[in-house]
Amino acid sequence: MTEITINSPFDMHLHLRDDDMLKLVAPLSSKTFAGAIIMPNLVLPVDTKQAVIEYKNRILDAIGDDDFKPFMTLFFKPYTKEFLSDVKDEISAIKLYPAGITTNSEGGVETIDTIALAPTLNAMAELNIPLCIHGETNGFVMDRESEFMNVYEELAIAFPKLKIIMEHITTKDAVKLVQKYDNLYATITIQHLLITLDDVAGGMLQPHLFCKPIAKTPKDQEALLNIALSGNDKIMFGSDSAPHPKHAKEACGCAAGVFTSPIALQILVELFEKHNALDNLHKFVSLNACKIYDMQPSSKQVHLIKKDFTVPSSYDAHGETVVPMKFNQTISWSIKN
Amino acid sequence: MTEITINSPFDMHLHLRDDDMLKLVAPLSSKTFAGAIIMPNLVLPVDTKQAVIEYKNRILDAIGDDDFKPFMTLFFKPYTKEFLSDVKDEISAIKLYPAGITTNSEGGVETIDTIALAPTLNAMAELNIPLCIHGETNGFVMDRESEFMNVYEELAIAFPKLKIIMEHITTKDAVKLVQKYDNLYATITIQHLLITLDDVAGGMLQPHLFCKPIAKTPKDQEALLNIALSGNDKIMFGSDSAPHPKHAKEACGCAAGVFTSPIALQILVELFEKHNALDNLHKFVSLNACKIYDMQPSSKQVHLIKKDFTVPSSYDAHGETVVPMKFNQTISWSIKN
Repeated sequence: MTEITINSPFDMHLHLRDDDMLKLVAPLSSKTFAGAIIMPNLVLPVDTKQAVIEYKNRILDAIGDDDFKPFMTLFFKPYTKEFLSDVKDEISAIKLYPAGITTNSEGGVETIDTIALAPTLNAMAELNIPLCIHGETNGFVMDRESEFMNVYEELAIAFPKLKIIMEHITTKDAVKLVQKYDNLYATITIQHLLITLDDVAGGMLQPHLFCKPIAKTPKDQEALLNIALSGNDKIMFGSDSAPHPKHAKEACGCAAGVFTSPIALQILVELFEKHNALDNLHKFVSLNACKIYDMQPSSKQVHLIKKDFTVPSSYDAHGETVVPMKFNQTISWSIKN
Repeated sequence: MTEITINSPFDMHLHLRDDDMLKLVAPLSSKTFAGAIIMPNLVLPVDTKQAVIEYKNRILDAIGDDDFKPFMTLFFKPYTKEFLSDVKDEISAIKLYPAGITTNSEGGVETIDTIALAPTLNAMAELNIPLCIHGETNGFVMDRESEFMNVYEELAIAFPKLKIIMEHITTKDAVKLVQKYDNLYATITIQHLLITLDDVAGGMLQPHLFCKPIAKTPKDQEALLNIALSGNDKIMFGSDSAPHPKHAKEACGCAAGVFTSPIALQILVELFEKHNALDNLHKFVSLNACKIYDMQPSSKQVHLIKKDFTVPSSYDAHGETVVPMKFNQTISWSIKN
């Protein structure tokens, strides 16, 4: 195959940041995606209807004329049903962060208590608002996701009508659990399909591959790859593309996040082709998300061509510089302009 | 206790590098140690008698008038008994690196084959030259040391009269194995007594704590700390202090190595005091090494005082800059000048 068309590709987990970084990265998603679930962890978390609308408008300004839908989210807090009913049409999901677990999550939930959180979660279930979760404990870095499985399980059982999205899963434990409960779903990133801790810290230390949750073992990576390639109905592509300025990544005390927006589709086509799974790619990058989120596909089509694409050493605009995964490396597929 | 004197402290695993870096770091070891086993992995490995003597002289030049003995080592290769007999008085050990496993190890051993290596290892045993080993496979980064245990075991059984030093051990598996065979011994670094992978990659990424073998799990760290504090006869302090220029550590693709020479004794006193194990400190930093290596203790005494020592942000001299572990942090013990 030398050309491929992807209908309505969605990125179901995306960080667009704000201000100059937003202006740099938003067009790099809107060029190749039909829409994305936009994370709400700005420096001031997005937690009011007004903040949602204003952030959405800043995103629409940043992408210009591109055909791209920002599906907005709220930062999880105990919200009333009245508030949720009022904001419902402006959001696609609510994102829960355990407090302090990753970038700009200080205002997250201290304890995930199914009784204390029941009013909010029951209202979300009634209003059909999915709950997206960054599922990590504050334990040992390689065990944080696996240790969180009982929290997912408890929530899945306590709120059977609530759609729960296990975000950016990284372990075989998560791959197993997502298949156990009807109301659990998951997103998987590009990097967790491709790398393990070896790539981050097995040779030289690679800050541009450092993210949370950290990449795990070869067995975990294999499990993630297998379920993504299979087209399993519960699994969606979510890049978790998380730009940080170059100087903040290549420094002592580098921030967590891998930037993949402008290379994601090319890599996915290369990967699914390599594993003879191109037939399932559309489910992974679009159809499953539409079913899980009750979304309509966009009419946007993205065309790729089998032609080498050398990833730039950085993307620079508006005074910001961000380094993508696979910088200076070559991918065998390109976006056809 | 407010003062302590350590007789003849030895660092049984030290990288002094060469040229300007040697001139910067050698005096930072010779100030507080009576001697050290000097690693031979220069850019051109130290593998001839002449190279050993010349490197020793460069080290002696760099330390000036300090009372400090550099115990030299050869880079392991298949050597003849004649060569080893001739070089014996100039060296204290031979260091074996699996090829490509860490900094400047490209010329190391491709396959550790007890039959192929027997002539050299038997000659070493006869001449009472210890074999120091960087014990890692090229497997998954968290498993590399544990996977190497069967190699240690095979060598320990095949060469029962050869003293084998398991360098910079990082796992509970190694702590267990070293106690199983009479001819196995081990060194432990400062950082592996204090940190886990969490400290390297659990929060922000910390290049100055990145080394090979990488820091492992809390259970591994606990096992290392317990055997070091116990004063076990087979366990020696070896810092593996491994300076790299600041710009090479705080960069995309940071080199492996933690620099601890100038802070090691202060940290060890603080640590052993905290665990009520000061009675065993002398065994860990001197007596065990003297027995294992058949060395005479030096008459050098190092005095420490319980007084806060704020670790510098870097050590700078001869145009080189190197950042120590715990930079800008405070240790409760200082070297008494």
